[in-house]
Amino acid sequence: MIDALPGFREFYPEDCYVRNFIFEKVRKMCRCFGFVEYDSPILEPLELYTEKSGEEIAKQLFNFVDRGGRAVALRPEMTPAVARMIGSKTSTLKRPLRWFCVEENFRYERPQKGRLRSFYQFNADIFDESAASAEAEVIALAVAIFQSLGLSAADFHVRLSDRQLWSILLKIYDIRENLAAEILCIVDKIERENPTEIVNQFDNLGVDGASLLAKIQAFRTVHSRDDLKNFFNSLFTEKSDLRGEITQRLEQMDALVTSLESTGLGDFVTIDFSIVRGLAYYTGFVFEFFERSGKSRAMAGGGRYDDLIEKFGYPKTAAVGFAIGDVILTNILQERSLLPAFEPRCNLYMIFGEASGPAALYDAHRLRLAGISVTYALKAGMAPNKQFKQALQQADWVATYREGEETVTLRNIAQRKDYAISRAELVSFFQQ
Amino acid sequence: MIDALPGFREFYPEDCYVRNFIFEKVRKMCRCFGFVEYDSPILEPLELYTEKSGEEIAKQLFNFVDRGGRAVALRPEMTPAVARMIGSKTSTLKRPLRWFCVEENFRYERPQKGRLRSFYQFNADIFDESAASAEAEVIALAVAIFQSLGLSAADFHVRLSDRQLWSILLKIYDIRENLAAEILCIVDKIERENPTEIVNQFDNLGVDGASLLAKIQAFRTVHSRDDLKNFFNSLFTEKSDLRGEITQRLEQMDALVTSLESTGLGDFVTIDFSIVRGLAYYTGFVFEFFERSGKSRAMAGGGRYDDLIEKFGYPKTAAVGFAIGDVILTNILQERSLLPAFEPRCNLYMIFGEASGPAALYDAHRLRLAGISVTYALKAGMAPNKQFKQALQQADWVATYREGEETVTLRNIAQRKDYAISRAELVSFFQQ
Repeated sequence: MIDALPGFREFYPEDCYVRNFIFEKVRKMCRCFGFVEYDSPILEPLELYTEKSGEEIAKQLFNFVDRGGRAVALRPEMTPAVARMIGSKTSTLKRPLRWFCVEENFRYERPQKGRLRSFYQFNADIFDESAASAEAEVIALAVAIFQSLGLSAADFHVRLSDRQLWSILLKIYDIRENLAAEILCIVDKIERENPTEIVNQFDNLGVDGASLLAKIQAFRTVHSRDDLKNFFNSLFTEKSDLRGEITQRLEQMDALVTSLESTGLGDFVTIDFSIVRGLAYYTGFVFEFFERSGKSRAMAGGGRYDDLIEKFGYPKTAAVGFAIGDVILTNILQERSLLPAFEPRCNLYMIFGEASGPAALYDAHRLRLAGISVTYALKAGMAPNKQFKQALQQADWVATYREGEETVTLRNIAQRKDYAISRAELVSFFQQ
Repeated sequence: MIDALPGFREFYPEDCYVRNFIFEKVRKMCRCFGFVEYDSPILEPLELYTEKSGEEIAKQLFNFVDRGGRAVALRPEMTPAVARMIGSKTSTLKRPLRWFCVEENFRYERPQKGRLRSFYQFNADIFDESAASAEAEVIALAVAIFQSLGLSAADFHVRLSDRQLWSILLKIYDIRENLAAEILCIVDKIERENPTEIVNQFDNLGVDGASLLAKIQAFRTVHSRDDLKNFFNSLFTEKSDLRGEITQRLEQMDALVTSLESTGLGDFVTIDFSIVRGLAYYTGFVFEFFERSGKSRAMAGGGRYDDLIEKFGYPKTAAVGFAIGDVILTNILQERSLLPAFEPRCNLYMIFGEASGPAALYDAHRLRLAGISVTYALKAGMAPNKQFKQALQQADWVATYREGEETVTLRNIAQRKDYAISRAELVSFFQQ
């Protein structure tokens, strides 16, 4: 007996049904937003993921050397691959692009509640649009996906932040620019690690950790646009040369939040600078979706990454998007009984004996080609009452075939009503 | 610039559309046959594939040692994993089982026309039914999948063979039983390799290669049930003790072909003992689907494998099924212009200016939640005539919003017909 690997899932039919139910809801809503689906390879050159995603992901890769001597890795996230796909066809693709995918990713992490080594993600991105209307559009799409699955503003919200305001703030605090990325990586962990540990990590970078943490904690209490203006106004006295940059960025944040409010999504949005995103490639607004209760990990995360395509050697292309993970989402839907029950039934079950078998088989194929689902006992000579018992469990209708007869008895199981139908009319009867 | 690996595919939206079109046809027909979908992990313990599948696949694995020291491999085929899934829940699953999946597999082969390193397969299997009605059912399903994609008996056929008759024949020819599997592996290559090479390979096993090849070639000319009876009758004088076994098996083959004829599929079936299947685990009837022209590789292959689940340490369970590969199939459909064109259009394109934007955004979200696809320009301040030009390309309807007005002009683009609709009625207008 050879079990599946830890952190990998087998999908028995009832699990596969739930998985596909969620996939289809995602696909449907993405299409309602005018997004088109794409996909990329599951196995890629290792350097696609070691170059730009940052250390965190590089440590979690399933990577190896293939039979041809290539260093390769299983895809841990979609963004680098889609950046390549967009970048390499930059001249022929019509802009702006609304693209989505439903993909499986792999990360070697400790398996635990809400986190597996293989998981699905639903990515949606807009390329070649630098206006904040693109952020508003992808955030609205993520909200709509969750809404279409039955979740409301009482269940979840999006915590909105901005790496540009973060980097302005670090400038105001005289943090050297080359430290900014590392500082933000530590900020990303503030919610999960204890303060002493955070201070130590700042100290190790050569900054006064205790002082920086205090300042950052003040920024993390900002939760409205008014708070935000006041917060930066209170700093202007120290560094007035950044004033123009700040004003402009506050206006852009205002435009984004106003746009989401116009869309009717104000209740879903919380300004929250605790969010910085762990991945190194984000350049502007960033956001994560959480349950209101705050008890589980992020349901989704995303942001703007305008430099990534250029970093891979292609023409600079604006980009913004998100990824929703399936593991947390499925748990949340399960807890709220929002997942459908798996009750597979065919349209028709056929009862027949040895002599009437050929007629039934012939009709079954015609019906199936016409889109009507048909089943029957495979074992020859099963007693008719046993076949009928199976029919009750497996189908909505039952057809009884008799030797030499061109008419079958068709019973609607729920209504307990019988019809005599000629075999020639079976397909049209079900297509009504 | 970091390209995709050789033998791996990027699916741009037009390719993804075709891929998903085929996936959905497969899923729909499997459901019409009462099959339910399952899935298994893409990464598995290496031994799942080295133990039972035979050498051919073991040489083509993408395998490595993971960060936890486990020997693992990317899934090269579905059968071992589904055998485990069935075997490990043998007591709780309702029988017989009709299961299908749509899965990605990986084999390190030389990429060429019709063969890639990553490919999709559509597997369908029936478990716990040993009667040949199960073979008939899975063969009918494969035929129906191809039919639903527009292919007919003029395009393809299924070449039906039997490993039991093959092993009886090898007994008659005094081939030691422990050589049978290796002999059949060589027989599997007869169509692709030159005769001298085949004779050499037989000789290397210690049998008279030239004599064996001549006998095998005679068996390969058998193409009807009459031929088959005559062929074995001509051998009876030599080994009459196998007579009962042969008679019984010829009857089972007769039942299978008769059943397929009853189903209306006689035109699709060719008896052809050239087919033995490369995988080691098959125990009975085996079959492969080919284009009539014979020019491409197999479109599908399968057979009965009643011992595999027991070999993995679970209770013995009868099993029969097939796998269809997507690469050959997509080529065939493409050559015959049977694939749909990718022409993504939204239901509605919204034209608005800065002042009417909030109303449009609000309506867009409501429409999308109601299942109506909506798009619009993300760039602020785009000239209305430019927006209208985009609308013609991207949607079936265009709605024009004007500042302060609760009524929008709705134009049906194909019919060039305008309607004045109040915003409150938009959703119901499109749901009609």
